[in-house]
Amino acid sequence: MGEVWVELGEQRYPIHIGAGLLKELGGLVRRRLPQANRALLVTDSHVAPLYGDAARESLVAAGIQTTRAVVGAGESAKSLSQAYSLYSSCVKAELERSSVIVALGGGVVGDLAGFVAATWLRGIPFVQVPTTLLAQVDSSIGGKTGVDLPQGKNLVGAFHQPSLVVADVSVLKSLPRRELAAGMAEVVKYGVIRSEEFLKYVEVQVGNVLAGDPAVLEHVVAESCRIKAEVVAADPREKGLRAILNFGHTVGHAMEAARGYGSWLHGECVAVGMVAAAAIARHSGILQDTDLQVRLERVLERLGLPTRLPSGLEPQELEPFLRRDKKVRDGLIHWVLPLRAGEVTVTPNVAPEAVRWGLESVRR
Amino acid sequence: MGEVWVELGEQRYPIHIGAGLLKELGGLVRRRLPQANRALLVTDSHVAPLYGDAARESLVAAGIQTTRAVVGAGESAKSLSQAYSLYSSCVKAELERSSVIVALGGGVVGDLAGFVAATWLRGIPFVQVPTTLLAQVDSSIGGKTGVDLPQGKNLVGAFHQPSLVVADVSVLKSLPRRELAAGMAEVVKYGVIRSEEFLKYVEVQVGNVLAGDPAVLEHVVAESCRIKAEVVAADPREKGLRAILNFGHTVGHAMEAARGYGSWLHGECVAVGMVAAAAIARHSGILQDTDLQVRLERVLERLGLPTRLPSGLEPQELEPFLRRDKKVRDGLIHWVLPLRAGEVTVTPNVAPEAVRWGLESVRR
Repeated sequence: MGEVWVELGEQRYPIHIGAGLLKELGGLVRRRLPQANRALLVTDSHVAPLYGDAARESLVAAGIQTTRAVVGAGESAKSLSQAYSLYSSCVKAELERSSVIVALGGGVVGDLAGFVAATWLRGIPFVQVPTTLLAQVDSSIGGKTGVDLPQGKNLVGAFHQPSLVVADVSVLKSLPRRELAAGMAEVVKYGVIRSEEFLKYVEVQVGNVLAGDPAVLEHVVAESCRIKAEVVAADPREKGLRAILNFGHTVGHAMEAARGYGSWLHGECVAVGMVAAAAIARHSGILQDTDLQVRLERVLERLGLPTRLPSGLEPQELEPFLRRDKKVRDGLIHWVLPLRAGEVTVTPNVAPEAVRWGLESVRR
Repeated sequence: MGEVWVELGEQRYPIHIGAGLLKELGGLVRRRLPQANRALLVTDSHVAPLYGDAARESLVAAGIQTTRAVVGAGESAKSLSQAYSLYSSCVKAELERSSVIVALGGGVVGDLAGFVAATWLRGIPFVQVPTTLLAQVDSSIGGKTGVDLPQGKNLVGAFHQPSLVVADVSVLKSLPRRELAAGMAEVVKYGVIRSEEFLKYVEVQVGNVLAGDPAVLEHVVAESCRIKAEVVAADPREKGLRAILNFGHTVGHAMEAARGYGSWLHGECVAVGMVAAAAIARHSGILQDTDLQVRLERVLERLGLPTRLPSGLEPQELEPFLRRDKKVRDGLIHWVLPLRAGEVTVTPNVAPEAVRWGLESVRR
């Protein structure tokens, strides 16, 4: 069992990582939030039949009166109308300021339930129980919550830190291999931005990760959480350092926007985005490890992740979408570019030729 | 011109108070938020024709590209569907994280526009330009934002501090006398909870307030802001001291809930609620100034405010609604009761007979 604390002063919170933790959910919530006598357990139609009862029973056994709300699976649940229907569940469950909302699911469930927790009675406690690798290593940590509008993803949201994150790596057994690989894209990202040692570990353990070895998954999740927690603690409101978590995401988000949501998984787009960023860094002359692009491509391919754009998507189609990224300030794109394995820089000064060259280098 | 700072560490902000300040809005925003090149100016259909152009011109003259959004007047604008339509205005206005939302209007506009600012791109800067006395002395300060659900008021919301409050007392000239009086209920409240000296000032100046004397209004608004700022700074998330601001509101909110929103003004309900709270305190034996209830009734009546329930509303009808107040914890109502002019206490230990006695004493 691992425990990582996200150090945010009064809002500091623990992430528990281990196999079989779902059974202990109620006790963990009770210890952390002794006043929470009522819970709204939010999950989706995929996760509910697998883990809904176990979560609910554990909460009830700990003396927490629990109401369940099941939303549809997939990104379309991250809508204001779905939030509205969860507010009605909050009314029915008679949630008070000391009650808790528990999100059991992937990033969509966490973002949606977190937004409802952030805004119900101007904010009530919130517990994340991520059931995908992506959610365990990324979206459940850091307090970003939100819903989509037809005009764009995450346009509406709030920063609202969870009180507790419970990451049970046993639930990853039921995760489709494609989703496991997509989560690994973010894991590779942590290595590149912050720890060459961790990148090496991942390179060595690819086979065990894909085989679902619990000890390896526990280390992968714990180390990813440690890195993300460190970055978030230094910059909770995303005003500076936190931008490095965006490595691979500028091109990744543009791919998602250009294709519409949902055709490729987020992690798959990020995988391509990281390769493109490495190529841009190389062309800009700031990449000290000149083999980093090849090294990245190799580990991503072994994980079964793409390293090139989908066929039919031309590099130049991405350019208008790059400028719509939330990290654009004064019309300048802030690129996160690698200097070497374990270190990145954030810079708005990238020559258009370097960008074009980077995008060309991921053309199928 | 007065300037009061709400001391909230990194989130500290100034309240500017004076006659004719609306003309200076653009300059004040520019100085406080040098990066804000775009604004969404949110106002309502009553205020837009009176002050919409002046506000817009001042912002534009300061080099801020300004888009206007006008919502319907009245509490019904505080809805999620109205928030949704303002999000579309944010998209159209191309608001970025450094842009600003300016709320020009009363409490409804401030709460709604503040909620949109709190949740657009996970929170962007927000400026309050309150145009009612109630908003100038109360709702524009303290960072509470929110919208109503059919099931209750302010059920959905967020704490989001403004960057700046601009209270132009000249605009109170166009305020109906009934609304001016309703705002004065909160002013009287500040005297009772925190400053007998201020309560005395109000008692002496009632005539000048109702005549709209700008110097008197400026002092009334500035002193109210000073008291509210002091309380909010000590307890921004409403975990302790801030509860004293709820003096008169437990019964007041129950009256609003029992009657449905909107038949009586908020301040009118608070006026009756303060009298009831004084009676409860007296019956509980904690009120040291035994003449406080009479003194309160006298100043409220001179302001043209009610001190008794509306005819047809029986005291016992209020009891079920008392328990639904947001300040209920573990089923206990936390009463804010006066000890003497200038000091209140918050206590859950009030005998049911005292409550009944207090409610009876405001029966028409």
